[in-house]
Amino acid sequence: MNPKHAPTAAVILIGNELLSGKTQDANLMFLGGELARLGIRLVEARVIRDDTDTIVATVNELRRLYTYVFTTGGIGPTHDDITADAIARAFETRLERNADAVERIAASGRELTEARLKMAMIPVGASLIANSVSFAPGFRLENVFVLAGVPQIARAMFAAAEPDLAGAEPIRSSTLEAYAPESELAGPLETIALSHPRVEIGSYPFSRDGRFGASLVVRGTDVAEIELVVGAIAEAMTRLGIETQRVG
Amino acid sequence: MNPKHAPTAAVILIGNELLSGKTQDANLMFLGGELARLGIRLVEARVIRDDTDTIVATVNELRRLYTYVFTTGGIGPTHDDITADAIARAFETRLERNADAVERIAASGRELTEARLKMAMIPVGASLIANSVSFAPGFRLENVFVLAGVPQIARAMFAAAEPDLAGAEPIRSSTLEAYAPESELAGPLETIALSHPRVEIGSYPFSRDGRFGASLVVRGTDVAEIELVVGAIAEAMTRLGIETQRVG
Repeated sequence: MNPKHAPTAAVILIGNELLSGKTQDANLMFLGGELARLGIRLVEARVIRDDTDTIVATVNELRRLYTYVFTTGGIGPTHDDITADAIARAFETRLERNADAVERIAASGRELTEARLKMAMIPVGASLIANSVSFAPGFRLENVFVLAGVPQIARAMFAAAEPDLAGAEPIRSSTLEAYAPESELAGPLETIALSHPRVEIGSYPFSRDGRFGASLVVRGTDVAEIELVVGAIAEAMTRLGIETQRVG
Repeated sequence: MNPKHAPTAAVILIGNELLSGKTQDANLMFLGGELARLGIRLVEARVIRDDTDTIVATVNELRRLYTYVFTTGGIGPTHDDITADAIARAFETRLERNADAVERIAASGRELTEARLKMAMIPVGASLIANSVSFAPGFRLENVFVLAGVPQIARAMFAAAEPDLAGAEPIRSSTLEAYAPESELAGPLETIALSHPRVEIGSYPFSRDGRFGASLVVRGTDVAEIELVVGAIAEAMTRLGIETQRVG
């Protein structure tokens, strides 16, 4: 299932609020889906606090391990927005007032207050990631893409950055829901998984309206093989008297 | 804000589906809120794939750094459920058929199939974490708590494990919503933050019904100081002509 030369990625979600039970992250699932669509394998994600040393250490560890690193959060104008400064430190450079970023803020018709100008402080050598939602840009430094935390802005920034990402064969998937406890379908599922090593078969249990079931997700790059495997699973379930439904 | 002797924790969310854009995690926010309530500081979370070496390395790194480690996911009966085996390896022990776990499955009236018995394979030396939702238990090995991925089961397991957690002063918080772009409130907010180092003030921007605003969250262990700071923020916003609303 893992194309040998597929680019890889890690996501770093930055923000105390994600660790304190205050905020539900909505960026990881979005980025995971987009990267799969582009054939980029998202290998891991980390959720860390707004702490400079932690951000520096995490970015420096992951940018050496993966083709791309995406961060979200901490690039706004308030005192707890320290991501840009930490990224500059990670790259042993410093922040500078980015003329292009200042121009974008000015062009939005907003007054150039100290707080807004803070959002124009960008690491030396970075290229801006403009976006259609916010006048404050994200930025890219080498293989690290620094995005906003607000989901709609993060999405717009990812869309703006996408042309810079070298992808591979898209990772596709099909999903079958089986209406039985996982323990009843584990056996046949394993047999099918063993005979199709180039696809990945995931089983994700759910309980809905008091009924147990599992989403069976088949992922790979070869649509024909995915369809073959989905067919084999559906057939095996039918033989066991388990109802299935194709959902994607 | 960080009580010197507060216990710490890390969360490891295990599952390919969380990294492929297929599934929205719902466990991190729950665990973050519960740990804050108990006065346990959640320092970081990692989202990793269903890969034995990765699970072993991550568990071994984090269990040495933090008071508690919680994992979610991968303890079901299917071929992709490898967490229990990986935890055993991390502790250099092995899985054994746990008599108590077998008894629980039998007591549920279910047939002891091979797949169900797989869920009774527990690392040697672990204690079970029973729960009210599923007959398949989670388990604890030293400071590592292994929970299910399905949110309702993870919650029931956490509730069962809670008496084993030594907490500290609960971390409390109050939230004020300010209806203005963050850049307009950054200055006064920083002034207040600098004069109250024992509380943590977070600013989390939102846009709702086309209106920009920020949730200002004040966290700490001293309720009186939190209230003082919330009052100071509300007053500063009023002086700027910014509408605020207490939401928690």
